Amino acid sequence: MRFAAEQLERTRFEWQQMVDHPFLVHTRDGTIPFETFATWMRQDYLFADGTIPFISILLAKAPEKHRGFLSGVLSMLQKELELFRERAAAVGVDLRDVAPLLVNHAYMQFLLATAYRETYACGFTVLYVAEKAYHDSWREVLTGIDRSSPWSPFVENWGGVAFAGYVTHLEEELDELAADLGAAERARMAELFELTVRYEIAFWEMAWTGTTSPEPRAGMQDTSHSSIHT
Amino acid sequence: MRFAAEQLERTRFEWQQMVDHPFLVHTRDGTIPFETFATWMRQDYLFADGTIPFISILLAKAPEKHRGFLSGVLSMLQKELELFRERAAAVGVDLRDVAPLLVNHAYMQFLLATAYRETYACGFTVLYVAEKAYHDSWREVLTGIDRSSPWSPFVENWGGVAFAGYVTHLEEELDELAADLGAAERARMAELFELTVRYEIAFWEMAWTGTTSPEPRAGMQDTSHSSIHT
Amino acid sequence: MRFAAEQLERTRFEWQQMVDHPFLVHTRDGTIPFETFATWMRQDYLFADGTIPFISILLAKAPEKHRGFLSGVLSMLQKELELFRERAAAVGVDLRDVAPLLVNHAYMQFLLATAYRETYACGFTVLYVAEKAYHDSWREVLTGIDRSSPWSPFVENWGGVAFAGYVTHLEEELDELAADLGAAERARMAELFELTVRYEIAFWEMAWTGTTSPEPRAGMQDTSHSSIHT
Amino acid sequence: MRFAAEQLERTRFEWQQMVDHPFLVHTRDGTIPFETFATWMRQDYLFADGTIPFISILLAKAPEKHRGFLSGVLSMLQKELELFRERAAAVGVDLRDVAPLLVNHAYMQFLLATAYRETYACGFTVLYVAEKAYHDSWREVLTGIDRSSPWSPFVENWGGVAFAGYVTHLEEELDELAADLGAAERARMAELFELTVRYEIAFWEMAWTGTTSPEPRAGMQDTSHSSIHT
Repeated sequence: MRFAAEQLERTRFEWQQMVDHPFLVHTRDGTIPFETFATWMRQDYLFADGTIPFISILLAKAPEKHRGFLSGVLSMLQKELELFRERAAAVGVDLRDVAPLLVNHAYMQFLLATAYRETYACGFTVLYVAEKAYHDSWREVLTGIDRSSPWSPFVENWGGVAFAGYVTHLEEELDELAADLGAAERARMAELFELTVRYEIAFWEMAWTGTTSPEPRAGMQDTSHSSIHT
Repeated sequence: MRFAAEQLERTRFEWQQMVDHPFLVHTRDGTIPFETFATWMRQDYLFADGTIPFISILLAKAPEKHRGFLSGVLSMLQKELELFRERAAAVGVDLRDVAPLLVNHAYMQFLLATAYRETYACGFTVLYVAEKAYHDSWREVLTGIDRSSPWSPFVENWGGVAFAGYVTHLEEELDELAADLGAAERARMAELFELTVRYEIAFWEMAWTGTTSPEPRAGMQDTSHSSIHT
Repeated sequence: MRFAAEQLERTRFEWQQMVDHPFLVHTRDGTIPFETFATWMRQDYLFADGTIPFISILLAKAPEKHRGFLSGVLSMLQKELELFRERAAAVGVDLRDVAPLLVNHAYMQFLLATAYRETYACGFTVLYVAEKAYHDSWREVLTGIDRSSPWSPFVENWGGVAFAGYVTHLEEELDELAADLGAAERARMAELFELTVRYEIAFWEMAWTGTTSPEPRAGMQDTSHSSIHT
Repeated sequence: MRFAAEQLERTRFEWQQMVDHPFLVHTRDGTIPFETFATWMRQDYLFADGTIPFISILLAKAPEKHRGFLSGVLSMLQKELELFRERAAAVGVDLRDVAPLLVNHAYMQFLLATAYRETYACGFTVLYVAEKAYHDSWREVLTGIDRSSPWSPFVENWGGVAFAGYVTHLEEELDELAADLGAAERARMAELFELTVRYEIAFWEMAWTGTTSPEPRAGMQDTSHSSIHT
């Protein structure tokens, strides 16, 4: 069995838990509170921005044949940031001066540390899982969302056909990388696969619960970390 | 005002919240459940081990005069790991095959990413805060714990005089580093100072609440991440 | 005095030695042996390719305002690689299966190690010096080369107005970065400035003398390193 | 065939060239000029110091079972630095304020960049080759040097039995690492093996010829790089 398929099978329980997350279900059904979605927007805008250094560090280790592709990912991220700014302006969400909630910060640290310290194939595994998770999550939303929803452009971006093609390409490349590796590196990739799913679920949970205790900006008086413990 | 004192003053509310954490209060008062303390032991054993790469990456960037000192920190960490193994054997806690809870993993990623990506002074800031936080936290416990408690060796290790001297040395070096830096780097150090306090509090919270839903090892079927959302 | 001007003044003797290098003088005067220029082409093609990871690692540390700019440098490098391939095809130089001469390899290692280990401002210093050196070197050639020379497109690329504007922008940004820094970091930047000039001169020397003892590809039987010792 | 043996066989011509280098032959025969050996001492003192960050970065990536071992290498390097200082004092060589010659600087950059960017097995390959090269080089000197030579302590340190045992251990670990790896990583290790031999030879060449044009310290007026081009 190819590497990606094998890992998706191994983590199918968590994967299902992820795509069934209340944040996604309520977004699909149009019952998500505006401020909850706005919290996600602000946090994910920071996350997309934080992904640029992750891809850059990976690019520095990439084999020749992946360089053009990863440069394309950097351009794609710029377009995603533009989508966030456009939507934020359209619906009246302020993206400035947002501090990352702790889970968001942690996930970005995980990306950075992995890209610096682990092998290219390990870093690429994390990239694949993060993108595959996003596609599957938003595709679930796409099945039922009212297309006139102000959130539709996000849903169509990650749940749509173009992103599906990108994720398929990532999967093929991951399988090809994995095919040449020894057992120890494949085992490490499997660990990172599973960890990335855990961070993805934690991110939705943060977006879903974070809204009830917004991260304060000035000072730290409201125990900003509390948002990750309900 | 010197850098460290200025930052301790700025984050005094969070610092107090940290040293007053229920995990510490109950450890001091002898009312901490055995399994709760055991969870902390297992997680912190992993964390101490994960600190070795952090110090190593810092060492690679360290100015000449800090090299001997940081090599000493590496040796100190080996002794701490030994303390964990000795205590674990004494009280019957199994340290093998423990997976990090998500907050623990995240904190280690923060250390690694900071050491790789930020300046030496920034990485040193995080080291100082983590050690100062540990000293102040355990010193609080030391004020009231029954010295015959099986946890006393930990409390005395980090709350005691030798560790106090080490933390004072770190503080002096941090102040000296900060004195020569420009405004932008000092501002970044202040951000990292605050972030480290947040991770410290989240770590105590994880130890305190994590015990009710222990992280499963085999497979991921029990939604291991759930432990960080109560 | 601004940082760049101060360093250019401090290293003016070496800078002059660089722009007066026989490789450049003979290229300007049309007296460079074809094979000598071809050696430079093959080596510099590898070097331009090796600059991509350097810029990527810098990008991961870059302040927000430099990100778009450094992404532009990555695109510029792709265009330079295209220029090499176009010229190589035009004049019949084979760019495939070329191994780096030791000085070329060493210079690339210097870029990579600097980007990973030093501060962003230090890495940016090296980028500036490398680009400024190239501009000044090729501008010297541009003053006298026969425009119908097959090497003209290279000369015009780096010696021309567009590249001049890019170098001026780098200089302004470098000066701005330096203005906010402490004495220790500025001193380190000055060291790296000087080192980069040394590598630049060594690179021209390698191109000039390397032709007489071409690096063998298969095996290492001809002591490939010898080319850097005349 | 095991990996190390296979690579030693593949590069046997260069390896022989290395151990037969005039610097080593003249040191063995007692005909090396004092100042030539002093140049080597000063440069290699810097190199040993520069190896500390290399080992540190490797340590951060090392598998659990190599950590204790690499910490031991760090301690060994401290002892080597002490040997340099002791010998320098004994024979009247000043180790202060020495700038690295370009080949020395380049070799250190190669170590650093490899440790940061390549896999652990790749970095470990470079460590093995550098240590094996040193052992074989100095063992050659050990076969004929007058034991009352002031240089004997160096020769006995790296050419002796204890260092031989260390190199054998490195070789066993390298073979074990290589056994589990895929073809692409093994090919990369083979490239790095060969490159390290080239840097080793270049280092002896630098020590041998560098003496005739010592690197000036103040300013760069004497074209310090010239020493690497005879």
